[in-house]
Amino acid sequence: MCEANAYLKHGNEETLFMEAIDIIEPYEDGLKLVDIFGRQKFVKARIKDMTLLSHRILLEPTVEPAAPEPQIQT
Amino acid sequence: MCEANAYLKHGNEETLFMEAIDIIEPYEDGLKLVDIFGRQKFVKARIKDMTLLSHRILLEPTVEPAAPEPQIQT
Repeated sequence: MCEANAYLKHGNEETLFMEAIDIIEPYEDGLKLVDIFGRQKFVKARIKDMTLLSHRILLEPTVEPAAPEPQIQT
Repeated sequence: MCEANAYLKHGNEETLFMEAIDIIEPYEDGLKLVDIFGRQKFVKARIKDMTLLSHRILLEPTVEPAAPEPQIQT
C-alpha cells in the first residue's frame, strides 16, 4: 500500500498529523486529507515537502499563531 | 514501489508530464519534481489533486498562455 503519513512542522519540531493518507486536495486556504478508510481532515497548511517512497508528507501551517491585537487609539 | 505519475491538466485534457515521481517540493512559483532515478523537472503548476493509492498526481498550470500585450498610447 502506498499511503503516506503527514507531519506538521512547527519551527524545528514535526508532529504526526494524520496517518495512512490516500488523497490530498487543496481546500479553500488549506488542504483536505483523506485516509485509506475515508476519514477526512482539513488543515490550514501547505505542502512543504513530500517523499512518496518514504511515505512522508511534511506540512507547514499557513496560519501563524494569533498575535495580540494592536491597541487602537481613538 | 510507491512512486507516482504526474499529469498536467489543460482544460478537460490531461497529459502525462512525468513518471515515477518520488519527491514533490514547492519551488518558487511552481513545483520541483524528482523521479526515482534522481531526474528533476520544474513546472509552473500547483497540485490540483493527488491520490497516492492510484499513484496519480494531477497538476494545474499556474501560468495562463501568454495574452497579447496591451497597446500603450503615449
